[in-house]
Amino acid sequence: MPDIVTVTDIRESMRATNAVFTHEVVAKGNVGALEQIYTVDARVLPPGAEMVSGRPAIQQFWAGALKALGVTRAALTTIDAMPAGEGIVEIGRADLETAGGSVTVKYVVFWKQEGGRWKWHVDIWNPNS
Amino acid sequence: MPDIVTVTDIRESMRATNAVFTHEVVAKGNVGALEQIYTVDARVLPPGAEMVSGRPAIQQFWAGALKALGVTRAALTTIDAMPAGEGIVEIGRADLETAGGSVTVKYVVFWKQEGGRWKWHVDIWNPNS
Repeated sequence: MPDIVTVTDIRESMRATNAVFTHEVVAKGNVGALEQIYTVDARVLPPGAEMVSGRPAIQQFWAGALKALGVTRAALTTIDAMPAGEGIVEIGRADLETAGGSVTVKYVVFWKQEGGRWKWHVDIWNPNS
Repeated sequence: MPDIVTVTDIRESMRATNAVFTHEVVAKGNVGALEQIYTVDARVLPPGAEMVSGRPAIQQFWAGALKALGVTRAALTTIDAMPAGEGIVEIGRADLETAGGSVTVKYVVFWKQEGGRWKWHVDIWNPNS
């Protein structure tokens, strides 16, 4: 009998991935944990810079960006998660504590499964103000 | 016999929708044509503002934004178009001529079909610099 995968299971798995980002990458500066978050051929589209392609380049990007912005805390909230074939398109909101104060950004992530984990395959965001 | 829809057909349909945006909305300021571009319950996530939900609000948004930024020309280029169930996730690049000069932005659009047309269902972008 095949496993039954429900929307609740996927949401749970998404939350687990997001928790690695907030607890490991942001809070501890452990960019190695980005392996658990991004697919190997993921793409990040950050405001104010060119697109970043592939996990090694994405790890370098975050190592620099977290330091440059002085991000000390992040909270990710899913606003909507839309089925998209083998993926999910998520609209979300990130509340960040940075050296320059509190910042709210909104984001769209195209999620895909890799090695049984739900991961970020395309990641784009921009600030609300 | 069912119609055979190929990736080329979808790309062609996407180009047609994008052409309405560049030729009607941007070049002529015809925001009524946004009906042919966005799904009725689309969401736009613009930099520097809150998310905009639903086509009427999106039409208001673009009427104001095109004027505020003084956008006179736009060219949209698809970088990648990934199958996503009944939708497509597109990564693209927009080259804009504005009152303040040339601007390059990158975007992610989640496309869905509505009434036989491929339309923008989720639309987010940010500037490259």
